[in-house]
Amino acid sequence: MSLAPLPHDTAPSQAARTGLDGPLAVVASEMEKVNSLILDRLQSEVSLIPELARHLIAAGGKRIRPVVTLLAAKMCGYEGERHVALAACVEFIHTATLLHDDVVDESDLRRGRSTANAVWGNKAPVLVGDFLFSRAFMMMVGDGSLRVLEILSRASAVIAEGEVEQLVTANDTGTTEAAYLHMIASKTAALFEAAAQVGAVLANRPEADEHALATYGRSVGVAFQLIDDALDYGAGHASLGKTVGDDFREGKITLPVLLAFARADEEERGFWKRCLEEMEQEDGDLEHAIRLMEKHGAIRDTITRAEAYSSEARAALQGFADSRARRSLLELADFAVHRAF
Amino acid sequence: MSLAPLPHDTAPSQAARTGLDGPLAVVASEMEKVNSLILDRLQSEVSLIPELARHLIAAGGKRIRPVVTLLAAKMCGYEGERHVALAACVEFIHTATLLHDDVVDESDLRRGRSTANAVWGNKAPVLVGDFLFSRAFMMMVGDGSLRVLEILSRASAVIAEGEVEQLVTANDTGTTEAAYLHMIASKTAALFEAAAQVGAVLANRPEADEHALATYGRSVGVAFQLIDDALDYGAGHASLGKTVGDDFREGKITLPVLLAFARADEEERGFWKRCLEEMEQEDGDLEHAIRLMEKHGAIRDTITRAEAYSSEARAALQGFADSRARRSLLELADFAVHRAF
Repeated sequence: MSLAPLPHDTAPSQAARTGLDGPLAVVASEMEKVNSLILDRLQSEVSLIPELARHLIAAGGKRIRPVVTLLAAKMCGYEGERHVALAACVEFIHTATLLHDDVVDESDLRRGRSTANAVWGNKAPVLVGDFLFSRAFMMMVGDGSLRVLEILSRASAVIAEGEVEQLVTANDTGTTEAAYLHMIASKTAALFEAAAQVGAVLANRPEADEHALATYGRSVGVAFQLIDDALDYGAGHASLGKTVGDDFREGKITLPVLLAFARADEEERGFWKRCLEEMEQEDGDLEHAIRLMEKHGAIRDTITRAEAYSSEARAALQGFADSRARRSLLELADFAVHRAF
Repeated sequence: MSLAPLPHDTAPSQAARTGLDGPLAVVASEMEKVNSLILDRLQSEVSLIPELARHLIAAGGKRIRPVVTLLAAKMCGYEGERHVALAACVEFIHTATLLHDDVVDESDLRRGRSTANAVWGNKAPVLVGDFLFSRAFMMMVGDGSLRVLEILSRASAVIAEGEVEQLVTANDTGTTEAAYLHMIASKTAALFEAAAQVGAVLANRPEADEHALATYGRSVGVAFQLIDDALDYGAGHASLGKTVGDDFREGKITLPVLLAFARADEEERGFWKRCLEEMEQEDGDLEHAIRLMEKHGAIRDTITRAEAYSSEARAALQGFADSRARRSLLELADFAVHRAF
């Protein structure tokens, strides 16, 4: 079984240079096991659960997080089989947060926002998310390491905090860059951090190595989210499948917005406030927003920031001996930044 | 700190006979610790989290589940302090499921259904529920027993399955009694079962005692849910605070409905289908539904069924020596059935 690629994973030249193919090849046989295990542990006598979960999983997803766990364990010299189940746990937690992140509010419905939940309703995805989350913990208990349980339960709490932070900062152009970075470190990077750290724990590596891998994961996660935020305003060849404008329509405050807002004149600030705080959007507003970002170099500087995090991630692996797994983790840090342009 | 009683906990004569006062007195000092711990572990730098969670906790709730854990541990002769944290975990898991159960769908909004989520939106309660759930697991990891983690993670998965079952059986008058009982055993009784079983695990009791307490908890939980379902159609003096008709308005299929439907004539079945399947409800329908239940003894027989489960719960404690804790668990099994009439 191979991974269902996202449209932009199949993009021409760049995909070859910075795609996921290299990193995946190194853990191809383990990823097959991870995928089988995921399908197996989705089973429930309540048929709606595997149905809905499979729908979500069939929809693709790059499975980057479990790949990070597998590669980290391999780089640390781990030779057992526990990394397969723990990689599946990481993906289950990720899928659960995706399902919960898609919950819509009355206000979203009024604005005609449509998500998977438009099809399934709100309630089923929340409950299926809870099921996946509980299953992940059952699998971790089966693994038997309290240290792993500690790392992943803490990450789950931090993710929830980050998602709430996002809710609080939405529609607030007064959000500081520090608050934004804290929020994405929680909602996105915490799971990458835990996914990488678990690799070192499995291999019984010293604390310094655990720490280095945690730094790697956190930095890759932040870079990944920054690029996601840039792509949402059409960075690179967004025509290749990535939807543009979701964040804008939801009034999410992301780094490109914060940078454009900080450099804006009075009139431009009025525009941002109308669109993202008062949520009064008209035809052409998204295009105008993108033009303002270009004018102020907001996308460019967001990408530059992501590149710095990617470098930090690569630097964190300095202490590890060269290996195919290590080279793949370095490639993956590149991929996080260069995946769509 | 004392428990905020639900209105019907303060009901006249019956409260004295079958209230929670007796069981609570036995674990009063521990419950104070549980309550402090709950407030303490709600803390987060994201202020919306304790705010929203405290709002929910201030709204009352009988805290029956943590009381079950405390009493079960005490009856088993446990003398340490671990039961306090685990009782708090049980309450966190319960609170998380309450928050997630309150998620509303577009269809609910159309029908004007109002819940806590009408005030807070859908998204915040889902994320705060995730936080509480993760915190519960962090606390269990802190406790350090993989056996406890196994019991409670499995219970959480079963609860999610039961909630999905409820979603699937809603609006389906063809639901069988067996399917209904399976559903409430999952969505409600699984946590009571785990809460009780954990007491035996803490005291290192043999498997037979674990099993007996699990049976006790499961039976109390089913009785508790059956009475909840009866109260929703006005059983007993429902005027004392319990809202009547919520299940009816949501088209939930509960035992009183199944019994009334099974005994209905053609015309009555048409009425139930119009109200609960097609969800076309008019003024006076709820009153008519209650009259039909009275005519067919549907409430009475639901209560009789609950009493049988309560007896089963009491019988499960036969093997334990007499003690204040054991007497309190027996009282609690009574309370589950006689709490509002």
